[in-house]
Amino acid sequence: MHYGYFNGTIAPTDQLAVGVTDLSLLRGYGLFDYFLTYNGRPFQWDWYWERFQNSAMRMHLPLPLGKAETYAVVMKLIEQGGGSDVGVRFILTGGYSADSISIEKPNLLILTEPIHATSASQYEQGIKVILDEYVREMAEVKSTDYKRVILLAQAIRAAGASDVLYQKGGEISELSRSNFFLVKGSQLITPSRNILHGITRRLVMQLAQSDFEVIERPVLLSDLYDAEEAFTTSSTKKVLPITQVGDLTIGDGKVGPKAKFLLEQVDELISNW
Amino acid sequence: MHYGYFNGTIAPTDQLAVGVTDLSLLRGYGLFDYFLTYNGRPFQWDWYWERFQNSAMRMHLPLPLGKAETYAVVMKLIEQGGGSDVGVRFILTGGYSADSISIEKPNLLILTEPIHATSASQYEQGIKVILDEYVREMAEVKSTDYKRVILLAQAIRAAGASDVLYQKGGEISELSRSNFFLVKGSQLITPSRNILHGITRRLVMQLAQSDFEVIERPVLLSDLYDAEEAFTTSSTKKVLPITQVGDLTIGDGKVGPKAKFLLEQVDELISNW
Repeated sequence: MHYGYFNGTIAPTDQLAVGVTDLSLLRGYGLFDYFLTYNGRPFQWDWYWERFQNSAMRMHLPLPLGKAETYAVVMKLIEQGGGSDVGVRFILTGGYSADSISIEKPNLLILTEPIHATSASQYEQGIKVILDEYVREMAEVKSTDYKRVILLAQAIRAAGASDVLYQKGGEISELSRSNFFLVKGSQLITPSRNILHGITRRLVMQLAQSDFEVIERPVLLSDLYDAEEAFTTSSTKKVLPITQVGDLTIGDGKVGPKAKFLLEQVDELISNW
Repeated sequence: MHYGYFNGTIAPTDQLAVGVTDLSLLRGYGLFDYFLTYNGRPFQWDWYWERFQNSAMRMHLPLPLGKAETYAVVMKLIEQGGGSDVGVRFILTGGYSADSISIEKPNLLILTEPIHATSASQYEQGIKVILDEYVREMAEVKSTDYKRVILLAQAIRAAGASDVLYQKGGEISELSRSNFFLVKGSQLITPSRNILHGITRRLVMQLAQSDFEVIERPVLLSDLYDAEEAFTTSSTKKVLPITQVGDLTIGDGKVGPKAKFLLEQVDELISNW
């Protein structure tokens, strides 16, 4: 069983509920973060906390708990849940509002969840994504606004794809919930703007330093044509190869050695966590 | 005391709560509608229902209740609340989701609320709005996405303004939660696109037919310079004069006779409802 924390109370997640005057429900006003624990310890905790804090500041929501208090809550939830590898979701909402629009005091939820791991066959075969002309509002803030990909769910399924790759005016930004990378020779290229700064993106860029020339720059649709490999990064997907973008096959359409190599690097780091 | 309905249960609104795997909380996926009741009867019910149904369809959420069933719930809530003039809010969310992203079954909330009426002094003096370069995503759908105006709350207050008027590339669309009108001579002009099709907008356009030339067209910032009057419409604001947009004074800066006339028309319709 998984446990969650809501404004001071710890309870089984399925018993937690938020009152109906919360601004996340009324006005879509909320942000979140999500990370995994390995061997009972939050992975890259400092980086996630920094990002969560930054999202909260950008959305004018004071954090009800400090870093050390939050860490203590997370550890308690993990212990009570009795598992060591879980997903942890922070949700910070605009809170209850008497006039349905003004922020009074944010609500903080900390939830542990089962990890929805990426399947072995997806790592072996790579995934297909479809393109969508879109750029996230305030992309650098991890707000809860994921309307776009939910609206596209049917189109993604119909195309036999797993996700969507956003581009606007020919410039690629990110997938719906993960970052985007291309490999060209010894260059590892990733979009520099209109993106959420993923923790796994940051980790992969760091791990790749010694073997690649790592480049952050605007990435164009035309960059897809001469890329040898493409992949996406996120905490749950780690390094997941993309072998098809819409009708375009990336490289030879097979999972390439460089994505594999970087996945191994990430997996090694995790196994020693 | 106000009552609400949630998936078949009626309870005092402050006792209703939504579980934490709801997609409105996790992913900002929800839509709503809002109307008033006068003399115990929902005002312009048919029009509101039509819009609610349209929003639900556009967001791929099947409605759990039909029109007649919903009307019966609304009437029950009004009776139990013991008041005749209340606000009624429908909220339809993506519902509980096992994987935190896929729609399974929407959650429907119907809440009665106290009406936050516009003050007499605002009708007498008109309001100030500030400009913001923005256009709502899927503007014609009444989604719960109001992040923008909540983020701007401090800027609005600092400017001594009441709300924000959205424009993009010089084209005006709407205020954060209401529509926009200009008066030029006998012309009543309102933006034709990138807007939510307001019920009060529709009502005012209908009431104005016999006294104005009613024009829906793209409205530019430059249209503000030779406008004699401006006003905004919504169910709670009815016809509320706008006397200042940023640093620009509209007309002579006073509430004009045509906005007053249209407000009287709306008030008359309401008093006979």
